[in-house]
Amino acid sequence: MYLTQPLHRAVINHPDRIAVRFGQRQATFAEFAERVARLAAALQALGVQTGDRVAILALNSDRYLEYMMAVPWAGAVLNPCNIRWSVAENRYALEDSGTQVLLVDDAFASAAQELRGHSSVLRELVYIGDGSTPQGMRHYETLLQQHAPVPDAVRRGSDLAGIFYTGGTTGFPKGVMLSHNNMVSSGMQARAEQLVTPGGSYLHVAPMFHLADIGVAQAHWLEGNTHVILPMFNPEQVLAAIERDRVTDTLLVPTMIQMLVDHPAMREPRDLGSLRQIIYGASPISEAVLERAFQVLPGVGFVQAYGMTELSPLATINSAYNHSPEGRALGKLRSAGRSCYCSEVRVVDGEDNEVPRGTVGEVVVRGPGVMLGYWNKPEATAQAVQGGWMHTGDGAYMDQDGYIFIVDRMKDMIISGGENVYSVEVENALAQHPEVAACAVIGIPSEQWGESVHAVVVPKPGHKPSADALIAHCKTLIAGYKCPRSIELRDALPLSGAGKVLKTKLREPHWAALERQVA
Amino acid sequence: MYLTQPLHRAVINHPDRIAVRFGQRQATFAEFAERVARLAAALQALGVQTGDRVAILALNSDRYLEYMMAVPWAGAVLNPCNIRWSVAENRYALEDSGTQVLLVDDAFASAAQELRGHSSVLRELVYIGDGSTPQGMRHYETLLQQHAPVPDAVRRGSDLAGIFYTGGTTGFPKGVMLSHNNMVSSGMQARAEQLVTPGGSYLHVAPMFHLADIGVAQAHWLEGNTHVILPMFNPEQVLAAIERDRVTDTLLVPTMIQMLVDHPAMREPRDLGSLRQIIYGASPISEAVLERAFQVLPGVGFVQAYGMTELSPLATINSAYNHSPEGRALGKLRSAGRSCYCSEVRVVDGEDNEVPRGTVGEVVVRGPGVMLGYWNKPEATAQAVQGGWMHTGDGAYMDQDGYIFIVDRMKDMIISGGENVYSVEVENALAQHPEVAACAVIGIPSEQWGESVHAVVVPKPGHKPSADALIAHCKTLIAGYKCPRSIELRDALPLSGAGKVLKTKLREPHWAALERQVA
Repeated sequence: MYLTQPLHRAVINHPDRIAVRFGQRQATFAEFAERVARLAAALQALGVQTGDRVAILALNSDRYLEYMMAVPWAGAVLNPCNIRWSVAENRYALEDSGTQVLLVDDAFASAAQELRGHSSVLRELVYIGDGSTPQGMRHYETLLQQHAPVPDAVRRGSDLAGIFYTGGTTGFPKGVMLSHNNMVSSGMQARAEQLVTPGGSYLHVAPMFHLADIGVAQAHWLEGNTHVILPMFNPEQVLAAIERDRVTDTLLVPTMIQMLVDHPAMREPRDLGSLRQIIYGASPISEAVLERAFQVLPGVGFVQAYGMTELSPLATINSAYNHSPEGRALGKLRSAGRSCYCSEVRVVDGEDNEVPRGTVGEVVVRGPGVMLGYWNKPEATAQAVQGGWMHTGDGAYMDQDGYIFIVDRMKDMIISGGENVYSVEVENALAQHPEVAACAVIGIPSEQWGESVHAVVVPKPGHKPSADALIAHCKTLIAGYKCPRSIELRDALPLSGAGKVLKTKLREPHWAALERQVA
Repeated sequence: MYLTQPLHRAVINHPDRIAVRFGQRQATFAEFAERVARLAAALQALGVQTGDRVAILALNSDRYLEYMMAVPWAGAVLNPCNIRWSVAENRYALEDSGTQVLLVDDAFASAAQELRGHSSVLRELVYIGDGSTPQGMRHYETLLQQHAPVPDAVRRGSDLAGIFYTGGTTGFPKGVMLSHNNMVSSGMQARAEQLVTPGGSYLHVAPMFHLADIGVAQAHWLEGNTHVILPMFNPEQVLAAIERDRVTDTLLVPTMIQMLVDHPAMREPRDLGSLRQIIYGASPISEAVLERAFQVLPGVGFVQAYGMTELSPLATINSAYNHSPEGRALGKLRSAGRSCYCSEVRVVDGEDNEVPRGTVGEVVVRGPGVMLGYWNKPEATAQAVQGGWMHTGDGAYMDQDGYIFIVDRMKDMIISGGENVYSVEVENALAQHPEVAACAVIGIPSEQWGESVHAVVVPKPGHKPSADALIAHCKTLIAGYKCPRSIELRDALPLSGAGKVLKTKLREPHWAALERQVA
């Protein structure tokens, strides 16, 4: 299997169908394939060799989609940068992967100059924006004009297709190496799970560097569907794009769904009837948001996908039926779903033995999506993948029907007085307090309990709830041993590039102190 | 990907669902998996090592299905024998593959004894029948009782999964080596193409040694569906099984569909309402048969699948819609369909250049189903697979929508006076003559024309049509240069094990004479 195969197939079967729409621009599959083959030629002319990494740092666009196909077409390796990362983080990723060529748009032109200034290997910047080309950069459209199409290099199977840097929440970024088989198999699983509407249009709203979008897009590539692209999430633009371009499918995170359904623009008269399906991930959706979504988007199916970059990314699916009013009676709405077609999912203890159903353990996954490994990190790879099983680090239990319910990141689980406390559960309780804007719960060292439950709370503006009041509130919702023993107020939580709370940073000072004592 | 993965997944997600029904016997997925793990243990105890071939020569049964899973579970390689082949042909396949262990049922017990008698390597026969165990054979159920389940060896990816002997029509049999990825990817394509009904039951009617059944069954494995098994095709038993076991999907060849819809038992009152889909292959279905099928099986979708053992087997699909009364207006009914999700299909000339749409050339296919190669035949492999493209040997043209229309086997195409004559077209004309029961058209040497069109005709009992009358009949239907120049009458045509006409045998005497002249 290979990433470019669906493009060849689309050119044979329906060359004149629209492949991509972005703002006022659009291209048929035949036109798109020609541009891809020209960009591949240009990359090769810039010195890109088989297996070389080519990066991009940009908001979503049609040119981003061309990059996604042209890099494998040229025989090279994808390395899309995280647009939420700092220059320092992306510099690390580019240096670590030895990337020499970077595509960049207007939003990141100055960041790219900075990256090149600090880099020992980055030598070519290609400007994919629409303004005047910044100094020292190549002009994208000129490159395409200058280079005649080259044949597809057809790298495939277990050949390296991309390096995807991840790991903001767990310390230093790691480059996840995915093969062509990894990525296409994930798309095939999504297709087999009916996550795409045949003959439809997929709206890219989530950032295109992320495997969530890449994975679902792959399924739409396989189907030969049209790609409609927005630079980033914006509720009004999403609604306008659905209406204008007859979008059938999209991928959002629950927060975006909530922002969309509660947006005033949603109440204006619109024809959103083309929309069939919203895939979401990252966390379960609240029943309240789902109810409101059903009201404003009747006929739309909601499907949860669970996975991670290391799984290319798909592991489990919670079906649209389980979200429907009838299906919800099955009680699976809070589940991340169950294993996809080609995947095995198990919940295991520290010795990799399967735990009884209903018992919390670590989620491990085996299947064609499991990464080749972490780039230049054989020990981290050996720790993560054992006997073909990817150890996700997620804590969950499985019910009798094979559905998994994620309770926490394993390392976010607090063991206090011998009892497991799931930080998510405590956070859910705290979040229901009217004066709490955000919160994070961690375990800190305790002589008496081993670990003790500690909460970091960001109050709503103008509020300053007392620790006693917050703890008393929690006691009305969860068992006493789960409630925080200590609480600190802060103005903000440290966030990763992907917007996840960096609990490592919150834990650090507490455990560093202990380490100093021990030393 | 690996063949046993869907079994593990089924055991996790729905251990109590019925995995298989055969006559009065049935087993849940949990029971089935335990039997598979016991059979794997027994095979290992019989000396089967990782990568060893294990054969089976039997009619369809639940034990056949256990064999299909237990062999990969034990880390070994499938080698199912063609039940239509002679002892000599199967002996060649077993010797060529160095197979030491053969499972055999009542229908082939004596053939198996003969095979062992003549073989230098075959040393163990396992009797899977229900009678008393023939001398010198192991008793299947006793083996299962004696051996505790072993863990799955989990051979996967590009590991060899099976050797499937093929090639009755093209000379000496060749062992097609398929990997786990080959076989599972074909199943995933079938699943993505909606060739299975979720939560349904698949009726094995076609012989289980054949990749047609194996490929569709693979998709049902991925879906976690129930397998209902008949020993062989029998119209009354098919109807009874559909009704009794609520069968949703099956695979038949057009002749079987015709026999089914025209059978008197079809007119008895029955509830066949569970049936959703019939996959067929080998040749297009006639519109007349399709019409009758729609009448007696309303609501059933007909889908054509085209492929070959070397493609694991799927290459193209002609959808149910194209068979429906509305869809037939598109004019695709005579097509073999267009490329499946992960496959590229092209029509090329002798230099592997794509020919214009509408022009006949050879069908070549690239994708995850392309075989590893022919067992111990590197030259034949290099000839068949070039640059990842499997050269099918089938002649076809492609229309503007990517649909291929098979006209002939390439080598069955006759070039007469510089004009291409497709034997199928001439045969279709001859077959419409009221006195013709069967016929085959070949090219024979001609000084004047290079090749000349020659027909071998089997008349209907009691008839003896003249060559002139037959040629005159053809002239009313097809162009003069396509009509036979010579005709011979015979009592029967030489057939391969799979029931295809052996044109090599018909051609031999004509060309051998020429070769003698040349020499």
